[in-house]
Amino acid sequence: MSQPATSSLTLGELTALLQKIFERHGTSAAVAQVLADNCARAQRDGSYSHGVFRIPGYLSSLASDWVDGQAVPVVEDVASGFVRVDAANGFAQPALAAARGLLVEKARSAGIAVLAIRNSHHFAALWPDVEPFAEEGLVALSVVNSMTCVVPHGASKPLFGTNPIAFAAPRAGGSPIVFDLATSAIAHGDVQIAARKGHALPAGMGVDKHGAATENPKEILDGGALLPFGGHKGSALSMMVELLAAALTGGNFSFEFDWSKHPGAQTPWTGQLLIVIDPSKSAGNNFAERSAELVRQMQGVGLERMPGDRRFIERAKSLSDGIVLGEEELAKLRALA
Amino acid sequence: MSQPATSSLTLGELTALLQKIFERHGTSAAVAQVLADNCARAQRDGSYSHGVFRIPGYLSSLASDWVDGQAVPVVEDVASGFVRVDAANGFAQPALAAARGLLVEKARSAGIAVLAIRNSHHFAALWPDVEPFAEEGLVALSVVNSMTCVVPHGASKPLFGTNPIAFAAPRAGGSPIVFDLATSAIAHGDVQIAARKGHALPAGMGVDKHGAATENPKEILDGGALLPFGGHKGSALSMMVELLAAALTGGNFSFEFDWSKHPGAQTPWTGQLLIVIDPSKSAGNNFAERSAELVRQMQGVGLERMPGDRRFIERAKSLSDGIVLGEEELAKLRALA
Repeated sequence: MSQPATSSLTLGELTALLQKIFERHGTSAAVAQVLADNCARAQRDGSYSHGVFRIPGYLSSLASDWVDGQAVPVVEDVASGFVRVDAANGFAQPALAAARGLLVEKARSAGIAVLAIRNSHHFAALWPDVEPFAEEGLVALSVVNSMTCVVPHGASKPLFGTNPIAFAAPRAGGSPIVFDLATSAIAHGDVQIAARKGHALPAGMGVDKHGAATENPKEILDGGALLPFGGHKGSALSMMVELLAAALTGGNFSFEFDWSKHPGAQTPWTGQLLIVIDPSKSAGNNFAERSAELVRQMQGVGLERMPGDRRFIERAKSLSDGIVLGEEELAKLRALA
Repeated sequence: MSQPATSSLTLGELTALLQKIFERHGTSAAVAQVLADNCARAQRDGSYSHGVFRIPGYLSSLASDWVDGQAVPVVEDVASGFVRVDAANGFAQPALAAARGLLVEKARSAGIAVLAIRNSHHFAALWPDVEPFAEEGLVALSVVNSMTCVVPHGASKPLFGTNPIAFAAPRAGGSPIVFDLATSAIAHGDVQIAARKGHALPAGMGVDKHGAATENPKEILDGGALLPFGGHKGSALSMMVELLAAALTGGNFSFEFDWSKHPGAQTPWTGQLLIVIDPSKSAGNNFAERSAELVRQMQGVGLERMPGDRRFIERAKSLSDGIVLGEEELAKLRALA
């Protein structure tokens, strides 16, 4: 009897499975629900590097007692446009979930609001944090710092994290405009894949342990580091992410935490900032029409794929065919649940 | 009798001279004061491409009746964190000046505030707009769109402007951390200089009129266009600038205005967004200490020059030696006053 190579799950089925896994490995039901939803949505949208691929890392970090899967975030209403959350050494996503209602309420009332999350672990893609705001007609920007692996432009040793910036804006008659970009030239996962395949990297991605430029992914992994994207400009943006996600929130810089006493820890213990703007305060109800016009004009100059389009295409496919997982992968997940 | 080659002016002297020039060429005294201050500070700080070099462009645009030098900005207090300004087809800097007090008040009270300027012309560097907030202990971010000259990544024709992003944050015991970066790979002025000198450009800066990559600056200027910095990431940021500075404010996208009936017009008629955050709402009084710590760590990994350092060095030199101008340049300015 030959086993089928793949199996397909609905979003609800995958979420329920992941929720069981998180709960079994020490998170509260509330935390499990948020992380499972985030991870299942990434898998559904073809963001494989942040989908079920991340489960072993989550579980390893939980087992190491580095992150508290039972943490209850503490939300503080600081001012008419400012919400602060102490994630209590838990994950960042439950902290966002706990403050989200208040953040949206403030953004709609004040026109803009900021959420400053500290003492948090972010181990997921950043776009799932901003996209839902755009679905509610709001514009959202988020930054999160991570862990030292990027050499500031002009420096000789790594200091910054991969420090992504994510943005989402509503669009009339279509999916929101969403992007999520690491301020490093390449993602760490892609370096690992290239090393495994024995492929060289393009120039400008990283340095070896002596700080010399290299196109050999193995040299980057062997005590080397990544470079920022776009030279001094990407480096300045990465610095800004450290200032906004850590200095402003009260979280750790990417170079400040020491997980050496928690073998297996993989989740950076830093901070996250979100800014949410209500565009109806300025542009009436036509912001979404205007962003649709920008997209039309971008297509008019020959752009075939908007940032984020790949995810929306994968999402549509998952909705019609289910989320396809390899049988072996699924069996491993079921064994963890 | 040999004339000295250069002459040095104080900031006050240069500002007064420029103010006279603006007034004589049709701006109100209030507008002249703001533009002169901005332009003189750029010259003082060695931002020569946005210093007195810009005066002919300003005057040409004023003479063309494309921009209104007498415009009185209309400030609207929209919400506890939202200020909107109609620049009334005038310059962006007087619009910012008119709303600045209210913006700071709101940022300190709400924790964050946004200023949405529309119907405005921005022809200056962006860092002078954000740096003063950092000097008051606030964190500021600004974006402004400009005019079609950048090909979106993956497209074949230009659409975006050079669309800069500027950021400023306070730092304990030192100058604020300030950067101002175009989201294009290179500034238009640098292409012109390379063309004049007959130098080739590095790869990845621009395309010719057929959309083909070129390192020849003359081909870029002859109907070609610039590329975004950092490939698809810089392109996504440039798109974000269009959405924030134009769609969100109610201003024009970089491709929307038609100045063909105003020969000599040079100032893009678009919009500008500023976001100001009061870091004391989250991190107590220690934000500036934390940013100083980040700078120390950046220096610790070998960084010799922070973003913005060159300007602070030039500023110190101008304070001790005066702002040095060529006699011929100065004579031209005096003739315009």
